[in-house]
Amino acid sequence: MKRAEIEQLLQSYKQRVEEQLPAYISNLQAPSIMKEAMLYSLQAGGKRIRPLLVLATLHAFEKDVEIGLPVACALEMLHTYSLIHDDLPSMDNDDLRRGKPTNHKVFGEAIAILAGDALLTHSFRVIAEPPSISDEVKVRLIAELAKAAGPEGMVAGQVADMQGEGKQLTLEELEYIHRNKTGKLLQYSVLAGAILANANEQQLKKLAEFALHLGLAFQIRDDILDIEGDERKIGKKVGSDVENKKVTYPSLLTMAGAKEKLRHHIEQAKTLLQQTKLNAHLLEYICELVETRDH
Amino acid sequence: MKRAEIEQLLQSYKQRVEEQLPAYISNLQAPSIMKEAMLYSLQAGGKRIRPLLVLATLHAFEKDVEIGLPVACALEMLHTYSLIHDDLPSMDNDDLRRGKPTNHKVFGEAIAILAGDALLTHSFRVIAEPPSISDEVKVRLIAELAKAAGPEGMVAGQVADMQGEGKQLTLEELEYIHRNKTGKLLQYSVLAGAILANANEQQLKKLAEFALHLGLAFQIRDDILDIEGDERKIGKKVGSDVENKKVTYPSLLTMAGAKEKLRHHIEQAKTLLQQTKLNAHLLEYICELVETRDH
Repeated sequence: MKRAEIEQLLQSYKQRVEEQLPAYISNLQAPSIMKEAMLYSLQAGGKRIRPLLVLATLHAFEKDVEIGLPVACALEMLHTYSLIHDDLPSMDNDDLRRGKPTNHKVFGEAIAILAGDALLTHSFRVIAEPPSISDEVKVRLIAELAKAAGPEGMVAGQVADMQGEGKQLTLEELEYIHRNKTGKLLQYSVLAGAILANANEQQLKKLAEFALHLGLAFQIRDDILDIEGDERKIGKKVGSDVENKKVTYPSLLTMAGAKEKLRHHIEQAKTLLQQTKLNAHLLEYICELVETRDH
Repeated sequence: MKRAEIEQLLQSYKQRVEEQLPAYISNLQAPSIMKEAMLYSLQAGGKRIRPLLVLATLHAFEKDVEIGLPVACALEMLHTYSLIHDDLPSMDNDDLRRGKPTNHKVFGEAIAILAGDALLTHSFRVIAEPPSISDEVKVRLIAELAKAAGPEGMVAGQVADMQGEGKQLTLEELEYIHRNKTGKLLQYSVLAGAILANANEQQLKKLAEFALHLGLAFQIRDDILDIEGDERKIGKKVGSDVENKKVTYPSLLTMAGAKEKLRHHIEQAKTLLQQTKLNAHLLEYICELVETRDH
């Protein structure tokens, strides 16, 4: 596939997700302020990397990506809830997210907490309802999502991250945080696409390993951008990790070491992808995006 | 069935739930502080009315109540998350719950928010995993739970409750709040038992109506107890609704009017229960508990 074709396809997936996302909220019988708060953060932009991973994985299996849309949107809802809660004053206390005031800055803390709770809860309903997915697949998707996002996954990572603040962490501890805080949900995105495509266990295993490397690469790039990035592109202040005395890949490994580690994980990810023998042009392209992204 | 037998059976169900609940948390691969925070609130006591409704409904269908245990525990986890978040400083700002310091008073706000998030997420996994439940039933249980607890249910009620603070509400507005904030999850408890028992649509409809009246009765009794209750039994300060200028059933209908409305809903609930022709001694007894409870 040509580069331009790949870019166009990913762009069209992103549009499809962004079209569909608000529809899951607007029609709810719910207090308007809550829908507004949910939509505010859902529509604040972002790379939509989790939905894109679901759909790109389906594409690699040569399946109709439309069947992935509910899970893709559910993932973006769940990811958005985690951002809203992470930004709260008692957590990271961030005023800006993607260049816009954070949810609690606009709607107040109480509504922000509840909008997050609502997005998290609703994401499970969005997967459980569509008649286009079999019950067996739904149950697997839901169990894996709850595992990736819950106390053995994303929430565990956030707790460990907070507890590590101001402490000197080892590389192992840093990896535990990222594997859980961002890694498990990125990994789930790929697995969800594969589950929807009825992948066999061998394929699932390879793709899980692939996604693990991709997730770590994603986080290392994040740490690098917090030092070398352009504030206007990232939409938040650069240098906040140093300011908050956060341990990062560059602080543990030097900038050169972090960049080398980033390349290593991307190489590993690409190698694993080739071993799947899938038609994985889009996933390969996403690897490159993760390696070189500027926001 | 004799009264003593009913009481003993319900007591044994409660014990079974309280035995099982910590097992769902203790074995998790998760930061110990998070498990501690989750267990702290899960084990803070309480009436366990939602789990009891699941199991009592299964009993009414003459099914083995053991198959209801995962859903019963999931419901208690989800209910507990809602209490932890409701108590937060930016919400109701409560220091005591069931006579013990609230979660954020012990663990801090950030861990309390995350423990709530973890309990909510984990409750879906607890329903999705047990091999004893068919995929079809699991999907229905999960979809209905997300509906009852999310932006068209419990969270909507909490938002409406907060927005109504300090305002003069109509009886209709008050009922909207309670139908959603506490009613939908109580209703779900009964429906979950019925779904697990393979109830037919006619039975589900009757039981849904039954549970709606039971839920409203539950809330009216709550309002009455906030005026007439015994602080030592309730485990929190009496008179907080008046202090917080909250609209309640007694404030809208007078105390006598509220008591009459309580009786009305209990009568309706019992009548609907009889119409189901089920062996519903335990559910009937729970109606009486709700009408006369002192905590």
